Amino acid sequence: MRNLTLLTDFYELTMMQAYHHHQATTGRKQVAVFDMFYRENPCGNGYAVAAGLQQVIDYISALSFTDEDITYLRSTGTFNEAFLEYLKTFRFSGNIFAVPEGTVVFPGEPLLQVVAPLMEAQLIETAILNIINHQSLIATKAARVCWAAKGDRVLEFGLRRAQGPDAGLYGARAAMIGGCAATSNVLAGQMFDVPVRGTHAHSWIMCFDTELEALQYYADLYPQSCVLLVDTYDTLKSGVPNAIKVFQGMRDKGIPLVNYGIRLDSGDLAYLSKQARKMLDDAGFDDAFISASNDLDEYLITELKSQGAKISLWGVGTHLITSKEYPAFGGVYKIAALSTDGGEWQHKIKLSEDPVKVTNPGVKKIFRLYDAKSGKMKADLIALADETLDNTQDLTIFDPIATWKRMTLKAGEFTVRELLQPVFENGKCVYPQLSVTEICAYAAKERDTLWEEHRRLVRPHIMPVDLSQKLYDLKQSMIAKLRSNK
Amino acid sequence: MRNLTLLTDFYELTMMQAYHHHQATTGRKQVAVFDMFYRENPCGNGYAVAAGLQQVIDYISALSFTDEDITYLRSTGTFNEAFLEYLKTFRFSGNIFAVPEGTVVFPGEPLLQVVAPLMEAQLIETAILNIINHQSLIATKAARVCWAAKGDRVLEFGLRRAQGPDAGLYGARAAMIGGCAATSNVLAGQMFDVPVRGTHAHSWIMCFDTELEALQYYADLYPQSCVLLVDTYDTLKSGVPNAIKVFQGMRDKGIPLVNYGIRLDSGDLAYLSKQARKMLDDAGFDDAFISASNDLDEYLITELKSQGAKISLWGVGTHLITSKEYPAFGGVYKIAALSTDGGEWQHKIKLSEDPVKVTNPGVKKIFRLYDAKSGKMKADLIALADETLDNTQDLTIFDPIATWKRMTLKAGEFTVRELLQPVFENGKCVYPQLSVTEICAYAAKERDTLWEEHRRLVRPHIMPVDLSQKLYDLKQSMIAKLRSNK
Repeated sequence: MRNLTLLTDFYELTMMQAYHHHQATTGRKQVAVFDMFYRENPCGNGYAVAAGLQQVIDYISALSFTDEDITYLRSTGTFNEAFLEYLKTFRFSGNIFAVPEGTVVFPGEPLLQVVAPLMEAQLIETAILNIINHQSLIATKAARVCWAAKGDRVLEFGLRRAQGPDAGLYGARAAMIGGCAATSNVLAGQMFDVPVRGTHAHSWIMCFDTELEALQYYADLYPQSCVLLVDTYDTLKSGVPNAIKVFQGMRDKGIPLVNYGIRLDSGDLAYLSKQARKMLDDAGFDDAFISASNDLDEYLITELKSQGAKISLWGVGTHLITSKEYPAFGGVYKIAALSTDGGEWQHKIKLSEDPVKVTNPGVKKIFRLYDAKSGKMKADLIALADETLDNTQDLTIFDPIATWKRMTLKAGEFTVRELLQPVFENGKCVYPQLSVTEICAYAAKERDTLWEEHRRLVRPHIMPVDLSQKLYDLKQSMIAKLRSNK
Repeated sequence: MRNLTLLTDFYELTMMQAYHHHQATTGRKQVAVFDMFYRENPCGNGYAVAAGLQQVIDYISALSFTDEDITYLRSTGTFNEAFLEYLKTFRFSGNIFAVPEGTVVFPGEPLLQVVAPLMEAQLIETAILNIINHQSLIATKAARVCWAAKGDRVLEFGLRRAQGPDAGLYGARAAMIGGCAATSNVLAGQMFDVPVRGTHAHSWIMCFDTELEALQYYADLYPQSCVLLVDTYDTLKSGVPNAIKVFQGMRDKGIPLVNYGIRLDSGDLAYLSKQARKMLDDAGFDDAFISASNDLDEYLITELKSQGAKISLWGVGTHLITSKEYPAFGGVYKIAALSTDGGEWQHKIKLSEDPVKVTNPGVKKIFRLYDAKSGKMKADLIALADETLDNTQDLTIFDPIATWKRMTLKAGEFTVRELLQPVFENGKCVYPQLSVTEICAYAAKERDTLWEEHRRLVRPHIMPVDLSQKLYDLKQSMIAKLRSNK
């Protein structure tokens, strides 16, 4: 496992040293609560898919400054020996809560909450944001692409266009959590035990004297997974007829044709797939599938399907692995409370001229409310950590900005679930290590708790994320107090 | 150094096994030439900045399949024992040529050329593309942002929004190559020996009872680099006045104020910076600088400057580290020639309905032509590897698509330089290990060989990238032959 301890912004370390100095000189120990949340769903989506927690766990578990790290920090001329000495034995000693990976989440609610000595909570800001922002972005994008594919399999093919090795690797992991069926990335397959797929490239075809020879050679070697690339020279005049010849040869020899088909990688995919489908059907290969790639995204897949494209397997590269349309998740990490020497929480709020940018103060939890009958999600309610929710009584919730938007859930007609789970307790990981396959299964169920209207790609119905009365009142009183000080 | 051997698309391995089988059964050894090139400059820029070569060198040098890798590949059920046995002792044995990092490059010309046994050349496609695509993208974006800043320093602040740890790390490296003065990324500072910068966050201010106390505490601890964040509560009513109080205190105590100023991170940066400038000047702090961050990119910096913003240090995050507007470089890796058993090169060309997508066949080199007097670049000329260029004779070059666009360079009035340098020879690295600082110095000189018109952010003047007559003729004859076969 890589040690990413120095994967942090320099200002985290300058602040950390200052906090260390403060503690050393005053003897006062400060514990802080930081929330990691985001403000806008990627690509105008109706929700996001939380991902990356396992890599945060790996990062936190491995946190420690090596001798080389200390030497490097000393060389910057910014840090004193007392602080460097402290770093030598540094370990994370706090608590972390988080929503499980694959959970459907919404703007404004904490995906992750750190309760830790201020110095420690500050250090880990950057890496937590980096990891969760990246994987949640790609998982969300993948969920969109898979939604557009309407049950067809989607393969993640983007490694060559990913923003560096990790973006390919963890992007593949996140894409699986978002619903992809497999990846082309072999290292991701090895590390995360997920299916890998791929056949051959145009260069393969071009290394043989003829296209037919190239396709035949490949089919001889891989009869069990015979997907032939047909667009190197001319899809309909050369590629598809040659593929059919190869399939006929296999049929004649009695080789079972089970998982076979063609791949289109250029040209008009609607037209070509319909023509190719007809040619394959006419030759008796109506179970041969047609896969396609070439700059696909959720919009193009939707359009191609609406035009009757005969494609049942989608290889998606650049647009998925970079979330090209919206390449940054925008998660932030904001202080919500501070306690000195074990005293009461002092709530913290960050004002902004923009109401949705004002942070939620205090130590919080998230209640997710479901319709008891259908199991579909109704709303999220952010509350203070000491609150409870009783579903045997009517519950009225309201929008925290447009407060006249109210909804009453009838006693017994809704169920409640708390989203934030303990991940670290006193620096010790208490969260189970889940396989990506397990996370994928959970994530698929999560998405199924949404109504179709929330999953629409364009202008989806907005899920309410409300504040409890208690949290709302706290927030309003803090805003009033801060404004009156001006 | 991480072993990224399995960081490849699955189809590279299925093709590789097939080539291995072909060689084992026919006894014929095939050597291939692959070109890595791109088709469109990011963000409509007039050029790109090549970057990532050192990481390609690291990757190629470390290429080898571990026992765990072999075991994993066996578990996929796709590979035979003869091939797995071959992989056990696999090392890259070929040649690689590349343009130096920091070189200004243009669409269609090879940034990197692999001449290697076909199997080996195929395996390394994905990682080469991943690495060069990512770093060239960010270096190019950084060059744009720095151009907009017109000599002001630009700091790379994007780690928290980067697409995973590597995107932050190698993105910071590329941003330096593109012209940034420093990064906030401590690990990048350590690994690449580049300057790191940063002061404090809003959470710092919020952890003290008052803003003044927070700023004072910071200034006491870091008098030598005193940049105070002034927008936590109210920039002009609270932040700037408090910063001025702190500076006055330092001045009163005789603490030298050398590298000091304020940072704006929200609000209207043009208005706020002008007001803050006036307040600082009026208090006698006319050498205090004003730095700014908050969703900056090259367009916003240009606009803010045109409105007279008094900002001289720009912290750029999300837009730079993700190249948000254009987040994938789009480099490809195409076969250009093949030789069997040491025989003559058999040229390869990939047709497309789109003329600019037709590849350039053969083993090539790039001549860069400069105006002898000004030292400014005139054009690039892609030629076959056995061609030479004589600058004591007039040279007429022409656009390979609009062939009527011709330019004659007069004998003696131009100079010539070859861009592609040997990097690996027979699997051995022959390229010098350069520090990022050295690469940055070279890259800055490279950009200075462009006229301003080529560096304009929007609709820049297009640099000619032409083909030699010999390469042009070869390409046309191959196109004609392939078309006649249809």
